[in-house]
Amino acid sequence: MEDYVRTVAFEQGRLLLIDQRLLPRKEEIFICETYQDAAFAIREMVVRGAPAIGAAAGYGYYLAAKELSDEENREKFFENLHAAAAVLDGARPTAVNLRWALHRMDAAARKHRNLPMHELLEVLLKEADCIKHEDIETNLKLSKIGAELIPQNGRVLTHCNTGTLAAAGWGTALGVIKEAFRQGKLKHVYADETRPRLQGARLTAWELVKAGIPATLIPDSAAAVLLAGGEIDCVILGADRVAANGDVCNKIGTFMLAVLCKEFGIPFYSALPLSTIDIQSPTGRAIPIEQRHRDEVLRIEGHLIAPEEINVYNPAFDVTPHEYVTGIITESGVLSPPYEKSIKEHVASKERDAGSCC
Amino acid sequence: MEDYVRTVAFEQGRLLLIDQRLLPRKEEIFICETYQDAAFAIREMVVRGAPAIGAAAGYGYYLAAKELSDEENREKFFENLHAAAAVLDGARPTAVNLRWALHRMDAAARKHRNLPMHELLEVLLKEADCIKHEDIETNLKLSKIGAELIPQNGRVLTHCNTGTLAAAGWGTALGVIKEAFRQGKLKHVYADETRPRLQGARLTAWELVKAGIPATLIPDSAAAVLLAGGEIDCVILGADRVAANGDVCNKIGTFMLAVLCKEFGIPFYSALPLSTIDIQSPTGRAIPIEQRHRDEVLRIEGHLIAPEEINVYNPAFDVTPHEYVTGIITESGVLSPPYEKSIKEHVASKERDAGSCC
Repeated sequence: MEDYVRTVAFEQGRLLLIDQRLLPRKEEIFICETYQDAAFAIREMVVRGAPAIGAAAGYGYYLAAKELSDEENREKFFENLHAAAAVLDGARPTAVNLRWALHRMDAAARKHRNLPMHELLEVLLKEADCIKHEDIETNLKLSKIGAELIPQNGRVLTHCNTGTLAAAGWGTALGVIKEAFRQGKLKHVYADETRPRLQGARLTAWELVKAGIPATLIPDSAAAVLLAGGEIDCVILGADRVAANGDVCNKIGTFMLAVLCKEFGIPFYSALPLSTIDIQSPTGRAIPIEQRHRDEVLRIEGHLIAPEEINVYNPAFDVTPHEYVTGIITESGVLSPPYEKSIKEHVASKERDAGSCC
Repeated sequence: MEDYVRTVAFEQGRLLLIDQRLLPRKEEIFICETYQDAAFAIREMVVRGAPAIGAAAGYGYYLAAKELSDEENREKFFENLHAAAAVLDGARPTAVNLRWALHRMDAAARKHRNLPMHELLEVLLKEADCIKHEDIETNLKLSKIGAELIPQNGRVLTHCNTGTLAAAGWGTALGVIKEAFRQGKLKHVYADETRPRLQGARLTAWELVKAGIPATLIPDSAAAVLLAGGEIDCVILGADRVAANGDVCNKIGTFMLAVLCKEFGIPFYSALPLSTIDIQSPTGRAIPIEQRHRDEVLRIEGHLIAPEEINVYNPAFDVTPHEYVTGIITESGVLSPPYEKSIKEHVASKERDAGSCC
């Protein structure tokens, strides 16, 4: 499926995103001509998944630069560009990959600030391409590393969507699962439907069916029966931001699974590129949790399923304290507790090796 | 609201049920003219909630007797009646109140087996009325007992629907919550939406809004954040069947809440009439768990929300082992561990006191 799902593509000056709000009913491409379109797409979850948001934001930044490139005063241009980047950055508060990608674009822009405009734009497009392609490479790498953790005939439970649709390509946790399937180790995947946005039902189930992987969809609250009943060998899911101490911020429902895993002695893994680790957030408490609109809970496909007058609590994410996390799967290896130490080491070595490619 | 919600009513020879499949959008009465209609209504969840199913089954039994009353051979009549009762009994396998009510109707029928047919039918209608009215009395009693457990300014989390709509009237766990509100003790209720049938969103939220109780609807998987964050003083929910050892079989998602309560030191209560306790089931493992249709997960209001090809696991209930249960609230007091002992005592004293009223 990798070839024909355009989670994040850039063609003829336009950012193309498969409209994830319409899946699995319709496969429609959402076209971003401007950075405002890109910010809309991120905010409204046309594109979602921390790494995919990062890749889309890279191109969003490029679109902004192109739009603003008539400004001849270079200082003014950068001022406007930063304001546009702030709009992109504000589209969603939790996934740190958004900020990370914008910082990276910004670093490339500043490094080449004195180039002629058309060359600067070329550099920025190349940097956005880089973010995208590196993400795919990273996912393939971490998937191989993570697949080692799945036993022969493994039965895995996952939450939300962390596949091709959640990243520039291939995916993180679902990438690990797909790799284990490719290696013939995987017996079955259970996918939480992931209320309220139903990413498990709409997106993960769709990817699993397309990939021909034996899979079962469950209501989120049915996980306890499977976990207690010895039906699951491990839980693997993604992350939207990981704090410096290993606290994992991820889709609402993650914490519940972590507690169940602890209770029933089942390994609990989070898979993510190192770019999802935010060493600026010392603990999960420092991570802003996005509260989303009440209609996500009250309406499904436009149909009201509860009385309009009821209050709604709809946090998009929760924080799983690091004590519940068995391991953090990254492209540079599986991080183990104590996370403060392992994260520091891995993030530092990543920073030594890399940076912007332009 | 008690006056105008006809969860289970019997008028002019017909069983009237508010069609819970259509709430909160439409308030429509589903009319059962025959016992087959009643079996359909139970199977398809026009009426649901263990005590409400019991009350509906009582009238269903009466409808069967009336339909079959042309049979002049009394032995043949009873044979046919037992076959009809088996149809009702087979409508749903888990809630024991269904079987309990049918046994009670059967006991009344056998006791009066030699009465003239029109008198026998009168007895059976009176017995069905008794089941209904006793249920309401029982709920009012257990609600007062349960309300004692809620602290001043209490914040309670509940799951599924256990209110007026789940019983002949008033309700069990939601009855406790309403009584605490009446006493001015209740600060806030959080209601799990309860996928896949959304009884929390459709029914509990509707009842709470109608009752003017401050309430918030949450996705099931968001409960962990509230429970860990000190936002909940106790969890109170119902039961579809309680085993002799105190294992609680209830709506899928109950077990997850119990594990979370244990992890975060929060009291976990199940509220139910003694008729929900099945001393024939030694443990929860002996309770048959109904597996419901895949479409309950795949479709919402008829709209497909996942690929048609995906497998679905859709158990209607789960079993919470008694070790997780802080107390069982009944009309004869709050049962405490060891449940084997407390259940034996309470059920025995109930059996001494009561029986069929006719």
